[in-house]
Amino acid sequence: MAVRRIDVREKVMAKNDEFAVQVRDRLHAHGVPSLNLGSSPGSGKTSLLERTLDALGDNLRIAVVTGDVQTQNDADRLAAHTDRLVQAVVTGGACHMDARQIFTALDEIDLEDTDLMFVENVGNLVCPASWDLGEDAKVVIFSVTEGEDKPLKYPRMFERSDYCVINKTDLLPYLPFDIDRAVAYAREVNPDLRFFFTSALTGDGLEDWYEFLTVFARVERAIRA
Amino acid sequence: MAVRRIDVREKVMAKNDEFAVQVRDRLHAHGVPSLNLGSSPGSGKTSLLERTLDALGDNLRIAVVTGDVQTQNDADRLAAHTDRLVQAVVTGGACHMDARQIFTALDEIDLEDTDLMFVENVGNLVCPASWDLGEDAKVVIFSVTEGEDKPLKYPRMFERSDYCVINKTDLLPYLPFDIDRAVAYAREVNPDLRFFFTSALTGDGLEDWYEFLTVFARVERAIRA
Repeated sequence: MAVRRIDVREKVMAKNDEFAVQVRDRLHAHGVPSLNLGSSPGSGKTSLLERTLDALGDNLRIAVVTGDVQTQNDADRLAAHTDRLVQAVVTGGACHMDARQIFTALDEIDLEDTDLMFVENVGNLVCPASWDLGEDAKVVIFSVTEGEDKPLKYPRMFERSDYCVINKTDLLPYLPFDIDRAVAYAREVNPDLRFFFTSALTGDGLEDWYEFLTVFARVERAIRA
Repeated sequence: MAVRRIDVREKVMAKNDEFAVQVRDRLHAHGVPSLNLGSSPGSGKTSLLERTLDALGDNLRIAVVTGDVQTQNDADRLAAHTDRLVQAVVTGGACHMDARQIFTALDEIDLEDTDLMFVENVGNLVCPASWDLGEDAKVVIFSVTEGEDKPLKYPRMFERSDYCVINKTDLLPYLPFDIDRAVAYAREVNPDLRFFFTSALTGDGLEDWYEFLTVFARVERAIRA
């Protein structure tokens, strides 16, 4: 059973990676930097994007492709925070987005009119880590309500991410959560992770995140220009 | 791509279901009721089991099989709360446990000396919903930090569960979380769900849960006797 799953998995992955290359090529041809956000359900990805669209949307032309297992709730929430099209991908039960879905979504985005693209993946700390969607970098969002040892228990997502947003810091006074230990565990898995400490509810720490996004978009565009 | 995935998935699922039947038969032959706990990462499954072992372990002989992607942290935590063997299943990257893993785990459990078996699945609200592990019922644990709409966004886990534990209620004063709306959404997906409202941290609401487990174990054993 295990062997059969791996064989097929490799074929499906290879096909995915072909689409990921095409996504990346198209984005780079238009100088559009992209970030793929992954996390557990309920870590605050959508809230973080809502605030980001509010704060940066006037200066940065942001495209969003948001994936969900069954609803388009996240896309509806985000659409209220931008005049631009928010693309909803419903995976129909699948536990992650794949690169072909992003490839198709790109047809609807005016890439010449885009400074930064977010992909908001399905809420799942396991499967999305393995799928290259053609993004420049993965960002793992990690809520302080989840327990410090999540980087050790779900290492792949932390290994494959370049950035880690530790979110819901407003709840720290009410939780037995040691943020230094969480960072140390995440660094054990990936010493190169860059951290942001945010509360998408109160706005605490978001200035760092906005500053990073602005610089990231500028630098990535400059590299491709 | 989609078609191939579905074909193979069906074969793998059929094989899983054969093992699930064998697990269920073995458990029922010994009169052992079983519950499969599923949730997002960080919902408090392990904490709930720790307290359950502390509270009921003297009167109920509880077996635990706990699955994790990479570590055996959860098994180590639980082992401190019981004199009985806690079985760790490391899925090696896989996003859910399968029935063959439970079938193998049963070899190590003295079923004649067991009143109730818990399976603590990998923290993932998507994939584990689709896999029958031979349990009598699934329990979905849902943290109030995750947002009220999770039952709509991840409906399969809520559809396939008989019981729903809404956990971390101690954080309600600090969250924009409407517990009535969460229950209403969960009932939309599955009108037959039975709810428990708990804080595994403070112990609030756990008496209901303990009472249920005691009755569940007694009734299920009586049915098989």
